[in-house]
Amino acid sequence: MVSELEQPQAITLDEAAQIADEVKELIEAGEEHSAWELLQNLHPADIGTIIAGLPRASRDAIISVMSPDTVAWILHQMNPVEAGRVATRLGSNILSFALAQAHPRQVLNVLDRLPVRRAREVAASLEPLESAEMLEYAPDTAGDLMVGQTPTTHIDSLTGEAREVLRSLEDIRQKLTHLFLVGNDGELVGQVSVVELALAENETPLREIASPLVATVTTDTPALECARLQRHYNVTQLPVTKDERLVGVILAEHLLAATVELDTRQMQRVANVAGETVGGPLSSSIRTHLPWLMINLGTTFLAAGTVSLFESTLAQVVVLAAFLPVVAGQGGIGGTQTLTLIVRAIALGELVGIGARRLLMREALLGLLHGVVLGVLVAVIALLWKQNPGLGLVLGLAMLGNMVIAGTVGAGVPLFLRRVGIDPAVSSAVVVTTFTDVFGFLLFLGIASASINLIT
Amino acid sequence: MVSELEQPQAITLDEAAQIADEVKELIEAGEEHSAWELLQNLHPADIGTIIAGLPRASRDAIISVMSPDTVAWILHQMNPVEAGRVATRLGSNILSFALAQAHPRQVLNVLDRLPVRRAREVAASLEPLESAEMLEYAPDTAGDLMVGQTPTTHIDSLTGEAREVLRSLEDIRQKLTHLFLVGNDGELVGQVSVVELALAENETPLREIASPLVATVTTDTPALECARLQRHYNVTQLPVTKDERLVGVILAEHLLAATVELDTRQMQRVANVAGETVGGPLSSSIRTHLPWLMINLGTTFLAAGTVSLFESTLAQVVVLAAFLPVVAGQGGIGGTQTLTLIVRAIALGELVGIGARRLLMREALLGLLHGVVLGVLVAVIALLWKQNPGLGLVLGLAMLGNMVIAGTVGAGVPLFLRRVGIDPAVSSAVVVTTFTDVFGFLLFLGIASASINLIT
Repeated sequence: MVSELEQPQAITLDEAAQIADEVKELIEAGEEHSAWELLQNLHPADIGTIIAGLPRASRDAIISVMSPDTVAWILHQMNPVEAGRVATRLGSNILSFALAQAHPRQVLNVLDRLPVRRAREVAASLEPLESAEMLEYAPDTAGDLMVGQTPTTHIDSLTGEAREVLRSLEDIRQKLTHLFLVGNDGELVGQVSVVELALAENETPLREIASPLVATVTTDTPALECARLQRHYNVTQLPVTKDERLVGVILAEHLLAATVELDTRQMQRVANVAGETVGGPLSSSIRTHLPWLMINLGTTFLAAGTVSLFESTLAQVVVLAAFLPVVAGQGGIGGTQTLTLIVRAIALGELVGIGARRLLMREALLGLLHGVVLGVLVAVIALLWKQNPGLGLVLGLAMLGNMVIAGTVGAGVPLFLRRVGIDPAVSSAVVVTTFTDVFGFLLFLGIASASINLIT
Repeated sequence: MVSELEQPQAITLDEAAQIADEVKELIEAGEEHSAWELLQNLHPADIGTIIAGLPRASRDAIISVMSPDTVAWILHQMNPVEAGRVATRLGSNILSFALAQAHPRQVLNVLDRLPVRRAREVAASLEPLESAEMLEYAPDTAGDLMVGQTPTTHIDSLTGEAREVLRSLEDIRQKLTHLFLVGNDGELVGQVSVVELALAENETPLREIASPLVATVTTDTPALECARLQRHYNVTQLPVTKDERLVGVILAEHLLAATVELDTRQMQRVANVAGETVGGPLSSSIRTHLPWLMINLGTTFLAAGTVSLFESTLAQVVVLAAFLPVVAGQGGIGGTQTLTLIVRAIALGELVGIGARRLLMREALLGLLHGVVLGVLVAVIALLWKQNPGLGLVLGLAMLGNMVIAGTVGAGVPLFLRRVGIDPAVSSAVVVTTFTDVFGFLLFLGIASASINLIT
């Protein structure tokens, strides 16, 4: 009855995984054509994802039976972030062809994710003008996110004229929720929602159904700020200006994809693996991971140096060594808990009006309370385990002190980094655990050295 | 010229922080009325955020000069997640009044975030029927996220009839991008975009401008899956069904707010502080942090026990103790890097078609490569620092082994937890660092014991 409305339906991740397995088996059996038959009835977003997940040889095999046009169409139908992920897995020829037909923002998104040499190679094969306009703008800015079209009409025109403007915006009109309204000098003065356009008569002046613009961004507003404005003010699309003139619009769906991507990178930054794709080439993983492993190596040797200062104490009471991971481990966890909350609150703009001093005091107090509970607990455990009351006392005190340090630096480090303009997500974790390691060992072994008579 | 279109403009976080400071100073000087004058011209989203950030006494003072209606209006204008955060900071009386006028979803969102006793108290003061309908649905499901209105029209009607349906949906019509189309038995058969409604004549049959539905969810579809469908398929609003009948719609703006909230909780879960609000009451922070600090304490004693097994070796070569944090620290960082990537990729559905075995092999190999580089490096550093070639060799080998373990468990643990149906974000980190601590110490001290002649 409604056959004209049928099209590929959404599937679950489990269904996608199962189809992916079947496709892989068919390709391995040399039946690429049957594999493609299985895929072609899916939604382009699923075709793209499944192809991206195939092992290299299978991916090349299935692409060889698809037309380049189909590949281009698939990329075009996907959200920009996922399209970027898929595109990086394709061969240069296919990619150049597909990108030649893609939206400039997608082209950039893909080029951003390729190794530099391959990106240059692909970019060289594209028509230079194709993406020149968008290439002006830095990555992760409004200019980078926007669609370079300007859905505007004059504020003194009638609904019927706005309808014609909407009709003329073939490519993006389905994704618009508002038309922007401009004054005599082309300045932005408001907006009109498509819903009101749908309800008004052609003769209704737009002024009667117009609404104010809450937020406007410029081409170099950071993507993170665009996402915040969208979320905080419940705005569906954001007008982008440059030199006071409207140059584009950020659509809700692009903002959502960008927000999730920004969140992903924030999580990855805390673990210092930003920009990494699971299952990508090993060489790129090594380039991402190894520098931070090296930096961390430096900090662990700082901790090692601290322990080394107390070698004579350790020689006298070798059992102290066993408790080193307890002091350091708890401090690290406590610091990371606080840090995670603060880094995220900073990113979401939740700290407005909450003074840094108040926050630091609060987290130090929280650390103190945790420290009392954990200090008593470890003291008792150490006493029962090693039958050494002095050791229990020393361990308990060190634990107490290190939890206060953990709370203080867990909050203080990201707040300080933000103050000096460094992204707290990037380096907070390594600084905080260095503090809790070094000061934890200093406290524990220092107190032990000072009260060596108690524990021997 | 366009004064009718003026309304509060968006401000930056820095501007908001500055206004918050001025408001705080005015209130502390006893000038609540001037403080409110400063606030009242802002966007409700900013008023709410600034009030939420004030210290308790100042917050109560400023609320005393606002009408409860204003508070209710502010909450209503904010996105549901931020409104929930603000509401938890308000006194019970104000809150009861504001919630009595709020959307059921917001009521639930707020009640979700209150301590149980306070939630019961506030809920008891509300009209029971007010939120009964939404209370049926579990938190973080489509039923919980949806607006319980059904913007539908029959597929065989004309554009003019759809316009009347849209007009009748006063409350949410500004937020709709599509009307859903139903067949004779009320079954969902498609949708029509508001853009097409704006362009079509009243006499145009809807069938001519209808488009297919890509994704439909049921009331108990998890919010995370709704967000994935929205993003993956570029869908602006999702129809929600129950027993095959349309019961509501999830709007794009609610999905974005929910997505950011889910991302926040995912980050917090990795650090085991899920659901915590920065600057909230200390008691709730302790309830969130302490259980995980206790669990972690157990795992650090596991590590301590491992070290303790080798006390006689440590007594012979006390310098080994200094290197314990190096082996454990690097393993922990390496494991966490891999883990962060895998947990996020699982949450975003990026692992479709990428087999677990292939991923494990890849991460183990990556660990091996890191291990070779870091192993050689630490061996050289240890040799130069302690002039002990045997020690360098033992440390290098242990590092190599522990990096392979880090890569394998960093990928293996979240993949396994997902397979058995446990959220990998919740417990992966503690399991992975336990592995890298315990096996790191076992390897390092085990090899040292076996080759004790080399290092003494």
